[in-house]
Amino acid sequence: MRFDHVGVATRDADALADLFGTVFDTPVAHRERFDGLNVTFLDVDNGYLELLEPRTDEGPVAGHLDARGTGLHHVALATGDVAAALDAARAVGVETVDDNPRPGAWGHEVAFLHPDSTGGVLVELVEHA
Amino acid sequence: MRFDHVGVATRDADALADLFGTVFDTPVAHRERFDGLNVTFLDVDNGYLELLEPRTDEGPVAGHLDARGTGLHHVALATGDVAAALDAARAVGVETVDDNPRPGAWGHEVAFLHPDSTGGVLVELVEHA
Repeated sequence: MRFDHVGVATRDADALADLFGTVFDTPVAHRERFDGLNVTFLDVDNGYLELLEPRTDEGPVAGHLDARGTGLHHVALATGDVAAALDAARAVGVETVDDNPRPGAWGHEVAFLHPDSTGGVLVELVEHA
Repeated sequence: MRFDHVGVATRDADALADLFGTVFDTPVAHRERFDGLNVTFLDVDNGYLELLEPRTDEGPVAGHLDARGTGLHHVALATGDVAAALDAARAVGVETVDDNPRPGAWGHEVAFLHPDSTGGVLVELVEHA
């Protein structure tokens, strides 16, 4: 496994992208609207920061913002086979948010594990297209 | 900047290291007692997961656990010159937790930026020895 990205919940992705770009020299690598979110990937040398801005008051990121405020949301680990990684996690008793891999932002296949099973850390498994 | 590690607050670093090792194939790279914490670094191909277990009820990680529970605590970005990075952050108005670089776990020089200035994300700057 390798770090793919760290997800950050924000109410203003453009402003945070500007700030991080200035402070950490992380240019915007990709922007898209996905799943009710404005998603912005910032380039870190060996991965990405993913800024998640809800476009409505509904959905898990909006819920995270209401409950916990802005900040770290999840960590994404890249694997060559997200379906196999999901099966392996389930085989040792880890609960999953997604029963099966599904399309994620930037065209990746993704699946989330449930933080109750992983020390409170929301982990996303990512398989690049 | 590059990802160095993602910090996770936990009440049982050994148990979480075992779990992550099983699920994500992240062997223990380093263990130490540092600053009132049991610190465990797990090897991810392009960085580390740092598990932070407070050894007392005092201190910022214990406070984080009380306020927010277990889970993601900070993200650490590696730089070749943490003093210069700290100055650059301050120059654009970012508040810092540490006025100057200080010794961190594993012998690194580190400094933390204040999450109020960085979108709610606690960012650690790390310079490897």
